[in-house]
Amino acid sequence: MMEVAVFGAGRIGKIHAGNLVRQPGVRLKYVSDVNAQAAQELAARYGAQVTAIDTALADRAIGAVLIASSTDTHADLLLRAVAAGKAIFCEKPVDLDLSRARACAMAVARARVTCMLGFQRRFDPTFEALKTRLVAGEIGDPEMLVVTSRDPGAPPVSYLKSSGGIFKDMLIHDFDIFRWILDDEADSISATGSCLSDPAIAEAGDIDSAAVTIRTRRGRLCQINTSRRAAYGYDQRFEVLGSKGMLQAANHKPTEVVSSTVHGVSQDKPEHFFLERYRAAYAREITHFFDALLNGVGLRTTIDDGVKALELAEAATSSWRENRTINLSK
Amino acid sequence: MMEVAVFGAGRIGKIHAGNLVRQPGVRLKYVSDVNAQAAQELAARYGAQVTAIDTALADRAIGAVLIASSTDTHADLLLRAVAAGKAIFCEKPVDLDLSRARACAMAVARARVTCMLGFQRRFDPTFEALKTRLVAGEIGDPEMLVVTSRDPGAPPVSYLKSSGGIFKDMLIHDFDIFRWILDDEADSISATGSCLSDPAIAEAGDIDSAAVTIRTRRGRLCQINTSRRAAYGYDQRFEVLGSKGMLQAANHKPTEVVSSTVHGVSQDKPEHFFLERYRAAYAREITHFFDALLNGVGLRTTIDDGVKALELAEAATSSWRENRTINLSK
Amino acid sequence: MMEVAVFGAGRIGKIHAGNLVRQPGVRLKYVSDVNAQAAQELAARYGAQVTAIDTALADRAIGAVLIASSTDTHADLLLRAVAAGKAIFCEKPVDLDLSRARACAMAVARARVTCMLGFQRRFDPTFEALKTRLVAGEIGDPEMLVVTSRDPGAPPVSYLKSSGGIFKDMLIHDFDIFRWILDDEADSISATGSCLSDPAIAEAGDIDSAAVTIRTRRGRLCQINTSRRAAYGYDQRFEVLGSKGMLQAANHKPTEVVSSTVHGVSQDKPEHFFLERYRAAYAREITHFFDALLNGVGLRTTIDDGVKALELAEAATSSWRENRTINLSK
Amino acid sequence: MMEVAVFGAGRIGKIHAGNLVRQPGVRLKYVSDVNAQAAQELAARYGAQVTAIDTALADRAIGAVLIASSTDTHADLLLRAVAAGKAIFCEKPVDLDLSRARACAMAVARARVTCMLGFQRRFDPTFEALKTRLVAGEIGDPEMLVVTSRDPGAPPVSYLKSSGGIFKDMLIHDFDIFRWILDDEADSISATGSCLSDPAIAEAGDIDSAAVTIRTRRGRLCQINTSRRAAYGYDQRFEVLGSKGMLQAANHKPTEVVSSTVHGVSQDKPEHFFLERYRAAYAREITHFFDALLNGVGLRTTIDDGVKALELAEAATSSWRENRTINLSK
Repeated sequence: MMEVAVFGAGRIGKIHAGNLVRQPGVRLKYVSDVNAQAAQELAARYGAQVTAIDTALADRAIGAVLIASSTDTHADLLLRAVAAGKAIFCEKPVDLDLSRARACAMAVARARVTCMLGFQRRFDPTFEALKTRLVAGEIGDPEMLVVTSRDPGAPPVSYLKSSGGIFKDMLIHDFDIFRWILDDEADSISATGSCLSDPAIAEAGDIDSAAVTIRTRRGRLCQINTSRRAAYGYDQRFEVLGSKGMLQAANHKPTEVVSSTVHGVSQDKPEHFFLERYRAAYAREITHFFDALLNGVGLRTTIDDGVKALELAEAATSSWRENRTINLSK
Repeated sequence: MMEVAVFGAGRIGKIHAGNLVRQPGVRLKYVSDVNAQAAQELAARYGAQVTAIDTALADRAIGAVLIASSTDTHADLLLRAVAAGKAIFCEKPVDLDLSRARACAMAVARARVTCMLGFQRRFDPTFEALKTRLVAGEIGDPEMLVVTSRDPGAPPVSYLKSSGGIFKDMLIHDFDIFRWILDDEADSISATGSCLSDPAIAEAGDIDSAAVTIRTRRGRLCQINTSRRAAYGYDQRFEVLGSKGMLQAANHKPTEVVSSTVHGVSQDKPEHFFLERYRAAYAREITHFFDALLNGVGLRTTIDDGVKALELAEAATSSWRENRTINLSK
Repeated sequence: MMEVAVFGAGRIGKIHAGNLVRQPGVRLKYVSDVNAQAAQELAARYGAQVTAIDTALADRAIGAVLIASSTDTHADLLLRAVAAGKAIFCEKPVDLDLSRARACAMAVARARVTCMLGFQRRFDPTFEALKTRLVAGEIGDPEMLVVTSRDPGAPPVSYLKSSGGIFKDMLIHDFDIFRWILDDEADSISATGSCLSDPAIAEAGDIDSAAVTIRTRRGRLCQINTSRRAAYGYDQRFEVLGSKGMLQAANHKPTEVVSSTVHGVSQDKPEHFFLERYRAAYAREITHFFDALLNGVGLRTTIDDGVKALELAEAATSSWRENRTINLSK
Repeated sequence: MMEVAVFGAGRIGKIHAGNLVRQPGVRLKYVSDVNAQAAQELAARYGAQVTAIDTALADRAIGAVLIASSTDTHADLLLRAVAAGKAIFCEKPVDLDLSRARACAMAVARARVTCMLGFQRRFDPTFEALKTRLVAGEIGDPEMLVVTSRDPGAPPVSYLKSSGGIFKDMLIHDFDIFRWILDDEADSISATGSCLSDPAIAEAGDIDSAAVTIRTRRGRLCQINTSRRAAYGYDQRFEVLGSKGMLQAANHKPTEVVSSTVHGVSQDKPEHFFLERYRAAYAREITHFFDALLNGVGLRTTIDDGVKALELAEAATSSWRENRTINLSK
């Protein structure tokens, strides 16, 4: 039986806790949160104890920790967990500061602890099936990737101000998808963008619409388009053109009802937002984490993936600000 | 805390047990099965006890029982549970014999116990959303219902011999869908069929393909087509034509991958069979059962629905055998 | 150069005339219609002459006639054209009276003239591609056919009174589709129906909604559902279940625009009505007629097909009126 | 009756000729081509005369000319037709050399002759319906345009060498779509590309895969992805994200057959190539040209559109070659 501590009892911490208690051979022992009430409620729900982080890390029975607290605490908690020799599941991003993220990755490497980063999209059933079929050669060699990634609406500007900007906050997932799907690294990156929905976002120094183009070392092309606001919901699609065809990942819908009236033939909008769209992905990534810990399955997303996605986000931010193509090869 | 006993630890019993332990305020106390090992495994998984049915029924702490044993035991267990004053969730069918089923319904009515029948399709997210939109008037008055209900392959002939025939075994679900969606009763029914896939089915006195037409008391029309074998998987669709439009329930797919190659543009086959297709429905019907018991929500499917679906199955069987339209109005 | 006379300058006559002038080696010489102005306009458009039917039939230069006048004149014109030894393209139906239709077919057979019946649906690109793939074995042996055939709205009751009833007026096309797709004949037929949209239709002795089931000599099953009123337009679909899969013919749409808004994801309604939906089919059946005449291609729809569809329409009418299954085998 | 001369009797000249003879009030009088046999065949088909270009231009009865000869002759013929005072329909591009194209546009402006450029995609039923709905405000203000434009296979390298490169040869259409759909002009453009399918294309100094990003004066974003080779056929899609939703133009298919087998659920590939995909568009643009000439309808695509698309193609070529974003504002 592996005993686990969860740091962070907010929205995403609750989801991870709910998923980990369903894993065979895994027990949720501790919950920690700066919000005592949130910690208490989550702990009570699953028969766990509320405790201080240090206590949890000092408990030798704890084999793994889940870091699901606010972004600015990730790096610190991660380094403390590394020091305590725990296996770690850390929500993305490692840190908004690239050098801090790299320091974390180095610490993980030195300590040789398992550290999985929460890029849950790699565990989405549709995305994963597409990747499997791509690797199996169904469309030959991949040549072009087009990613559409749009939120149903922007978060409060107060959040945006500490988000690291659209490239670190939203596109970090798309940069990871790019690296995973094409199994290649960026040679150059070019980004542009605009603020079209709310001037307050521009005042905060950010944009709400972005267009990124990446050319890989092997000459493959990737285009990403993003918006903070898609009136019809959370739009999460991508398509890969290969030498022998194309694979597309379409949106998931809540139901398969089709309505035909005098106004047209209509279907459901996409799943509303990430909690709905990636419900299965969140469950599957936790299963994968414990499969890696308990059954020796190779880890699909590591802290290095987090660092590399962050490098792309930084380069994209520079490209957008300086209005030029950034060369990433050495 | 409501304590519950599950009778039957087979495939469907396991699913129900897994769903009921997730209900807040509900505890699985007992598991009973003629197969001691199956009972033991299921009980162990959720910290329950294996016990004899009589013991479970005699335990006053038990508020509800789930009957998920083999069809031929349903009526007996149901009557014993009624006598013990338990709330009952019973897998369909009540019994293959109509008069026995009616006797059970009468016992339930007399004892005024809660008895829900496991017509899980009413809890499928797509079907339920369609029903809700129909009731809300999106397509006006319903006029015509077309149901397509096909299995991916026939069960062993040995099973078919004790199944009650295709109308009681397969179409019983479709007859319930008919009654639920149109909110109307059959005035006449006409059925025909053939054995096209395997002569052994004909030798067993059954058919593998059936076509049923029902005309309701209000003059609405319903057509059902069924086959034991759809090479592409489990095909579960229906459509309602109304005075102002049409609502269709399309199949669910495992993923939303679309592949375009020199051979065409293709998507996933439908979910393989009922365990996959109705996974959400099975979970939601159990939630509904306890919502009815604990929160006073009105029961959506009762033992009377089971009796009425069985009446239609008997009438369809007669219509097919006698090659004539059966009048169901008094 | 084959010279042709068109009888009937109404809506469908104009379509046929426009299609025939595009055939290489074919010239429209005469147009006849009881409405002199309509005849004049159509003739002027394509440089043809208006003439009396007798004159056209007496002209030895005329190789073929197209009968596109009102239904009650078909049989008479057909017999006169047969007597004149002309090749004939005749709009459906041959006649509403089965014995008259049979007499026409006999006359055609005796005179050994070419006589094609205007079942244009057999020339629809989607339907024809489906038939070709079915014959090629893509889904193995056909077992079940489900036909959905709905008009966007009922014609005036005055028209309905002389239409022969819904089975002869609307379903005649579906009966032909049934025979063509399954390449089989009906063994028994069972029909029911209702009047749900307009009581005036019931007063005229007709219905607006019908459900038909056919069992073929080889045990295949066919279900047809029809309505005079689909609020979303002209609904023309069918699907064939075979031993190895299913082929479906979906509706055609005017455009491929997809709109995603807060209300849902919607596409175009189907093509509005038969003139739009079967535009290509009308062109292709005329090409086929002259291919048969000039290039010896075998005729795809003959007057015998018209007679057989009418036999099914009569049997369906009887089944509906008498509320019983009609046996069609001898 | 307007009399017309067609210059060029190749593939596209034939299509235009076939469409113009169907226009009421229009007569094809002359056909000219350096290939005498091609000219003869096309003229014979429609009862026109073969003649020299000078003769056609000198004939005062000729009201309009269609220039459908090889690209390198467009500018010369256009200038001669302008000098002769004819209305002109000219196939795209005006010329591969931007200054020559500008000179042509200036000559047209000075002479005030009507000159329509053959950007047929603006007349595609799907694209046109999308534009109409966009203008009607269905999705609010447009913010982002994503264009997918892929050929089914590359032409011979010999052709590519004189094609002007992928941006002038293929993307010129997409640049026009961009300007038309967003009703905006480019502020900056950034292009990259690769040669992935055939090294011979790289040796010819060209690429087969391109990714372009445009930012408009109003801050809107446009991404275009192109490939010379889509194994599944001619892929012609675009989507516009607006403040209130999204409009997508999906591919057209030859038929609406859906096949469900053990391998999946599949539909037709897109229409094979531009002659099939834009068949309706070619007909409609000719109708529009004569509507403009005869009925005073405003011209939808002018020679200026041709110049502006070419400017974008040149800028994209520079951006790709020099690996930098090109600023287009003055």
